[in-house]
Amino acid sequence: MERRKFLTTAGVGAAATALAAPAIAQEAPSFAWRLTSGFPRTLDTIWGAAEVIAKICSDATDGKFQIQPFPAGEIVPNPEAVDAVSSNTVEMAHTCSYYYIGKDPTFALGTAVPFSLNARGMNAWLYERGGEDMLNTFYAKYNMIGFASGNTGVQMGGWWRKEINSVADLAGVKMRIAGLGGRVMEALGVVPQQIPGGDIYPSLERGTIDAAEWVGPYDDEKLGLNQVAPYYYYPGFWEGGPAIHTFINLDRWNELPASYQAILRSACATANQDMLAKYDARNPVALRSLVAGGAQLRAYPEDVLTAALTAANEIFTQISSENEDFKTIWESQTAFRNEHNLWNQVAEYTFDTFQIRNRPRG
Amino acid sequence: MERRKFLTTAGVGAAATALAAPAIAQEAPSFAWRLTSGFPRTLDTIWGAAEVIAKICSDATDGKFQIQPFPAGEIVPNPEAVDAVSSNTVEMAHTCSYYYIGKDPTFALGTAVPFSLNARGMNAWLYERGGEDMLNTFYAKYNMIGFASGNTGVQMGGWWRKEINSVADLAGVKMRIAGLGGRVMEALGVVPQQIPGGDIYPSLERGTIDAAEWVGPYDDEKLGLNQVAPYYYYPGFWEGGPAIHTFINLDRWNELPASYQAILRSACATANQDMLAKYDARNPVALRSLVAGGAQLRAYPEDVLTAALTAANEIFTQISSENEDFKTIWESQTAFRNEHNLWNQVAEYTFDTFQIRNRPRG
Repeated sequence: MERRKFLTTAGVGAAATALAAPAIAQEAPSFAWRLTSGFPRTLDTIWGAAEVIAKICSDATDGKFQIQPFPAGEIVPNPEAVDAVSSNTVEMAHTCSYYYIGKDPTFALGTAVPFSLNARGMNAWLYERGGEDMLNTFYAKYNMIGFASGNTGVQMGGWWRKEINSVADLAGVKMRIAGLGGRVMEALGVVPQQIPGGDIYPSLERGTIDAAEWVGPYDDEKLGLNQVAPYYYYPGFWEGGPAIHTFINLDRWNELPASYQAILRSACATANQDMLAKYDARNPVALRSLVAGGAQLRAYPEDVLTAALTAANEIFTQISSENEDFKTIWESQTAFRNEHNLWNQVAEYTFDTFQIRNRPRG
Repeated sequence: MERRKFLTTAGVGAAATALAAPAIAQEAPSFAWRLTSGFPRTLDTIWGAAEVIAKICSDATDGKFQIQPFPAGEIVPNPEAVDAVSSNTVEMAHTCSYYYIGKDPTFALGTAVPFSLNARGMNAWLYERGGEDMLNTFYAKYNMIGFASGNTGVQMGGWWRKEINSVADLAGVKMRIAGLGGRVMEALGVVPQQIPGGDIYPSLERGTIDAAEWVGPYDDEKLGLNQVAPYYYYPGFWEGGPAIHTFINLDRWNELPASYQAILRSACATANQDMLAKYDARNPVALRSLVAGGAQLRAYPEDVLTAALTAANEIFTQISSENEDFKTIWESQTAFRNEHNLWNQVAEYTFDTFQIRNRPRG
């Protein structure tokens, strides 16, 4: 606690210098901020985005704007990252907005809700259709501002001990899945379980749970789930293009010089693109390795997807009837999703279809 | 010419200050650079990336790192942008690498070659599979360094006055299409034509040409081509994920302080993502409008795509046999393309397929 206090005080001192400095000298002010990540170092791709942001901010200011990232739990208990940023215990967090749906389901829309946008659609909505501004109007209630800083792309649909041939096979299945994805699965008969990442393997091995979703091939491979649940389902329809956010305490943000704000925003945008590139580069290698290690790829049956879409729309409608923030943002996101899919189906989809079909030709 | 000389000299002066300054003071050095764009202002999305980069560099340095973008042809004749950067007539260009295949076909690989990567794949290859480094080894021969700074996504396959039902229908068709895409089409019987964007409409109207490719719905709509060539084909298989580059004279780049280099690189990455988001946000609106205005969407017949793929592979093999740079980079890009499509077909493609099919359900 001593250390935390010291650093926080140092940050405030630096900010005061920043306010006074421009009138008298060109010297750039110094900031030493702390960032709590929602992820452990072992998830190097998603954790790494915080390091990318910190490096750009430091490099761009000759080391004057320092951000020190800490893994989940090291300085702030992971479920409290948003509270820690709100209260200025730390200046920043890099985490998933949807971890905080317990406070307000609107937080889900900053990351992903079932059957929403893919990664490109999410970026177009965030940057060009007012998504980021709408989210920041909401985040301001928590004294935070947020910028998209990473995307995994469509996630996988999880590891199952048994095959799923229709909705009927879901009845009573205990699946590790959280959030609104869990609520949709629950509507289809699944019994959702909330289990930390590190406990997934033993839980599946002992049969305490029957299925578990994690991320995608690159992260999933590290958990070795193919050894205890051979059926690897896709797509993770509850996470079509999940955005990971950098949250910044709004007072600290407002104290930053405009130049540092510009640097941090550009760093977040860079990290956003960079994380997706990392997943896209690493997932194919991991997928091959998992299949070689016994993973059996299965697509979710069409009736499961269709029932899940119906359930999701009912859940969204119900939440919207009770929550004006959710309603406003969800309607914007859904309207753009429909437009995006209209365009996506023309040039992108037909190009990808041909490329995929002709892959064996090299 | 007076003006150009003045600004170039000013830039050199600023660079000299930059080299001397760090030892004596914290004061940040000033740079006033000029950027020649490969595009006119009317193509606001692709031209706009240069403005995005300039704004970030200025904002991040309190106006000390100034980049002034000029539209194509205003200070440098468009086909000479690379020469102008090589020779330091201007410090920067923002343009398509593949415009310069006349110098060396390897330039094509910095933007797109037929049946290569989509936008996400291109980023993953550039940033995570050594693509950017390989390209920069090549660009260094022209005393330049380049960073991806925009992507249009899969382009459309152009406007045709008549329908195409098979490869046979391509014989003798005069199509406005340049570069390696033109060479592939030529192998299928098309007579490729090189015509500036502004001349496409009258050429199609008069029947001087029978078909023309441009970009995608948002840019194409401005030319009004639906009024003179109703069949709007997709996908533009010669441009699956074309990257637009920022080229910087290598000596000027090396003179930049490390902090300005970090800012410029992050600005280019931000612009890269931003341009794709702009196209993704604007293309669906333009597509609806074009269809309402008489455009008739048509997919290229499968036999055209298959014959084009065969022709493309023959052309790539032939160029590779004569050009070591092309061979090295093309083999890297193609190897990753095959991996990318392996991963793409699992979670991404099935998610998109379901979303597209269920679009009418909202």
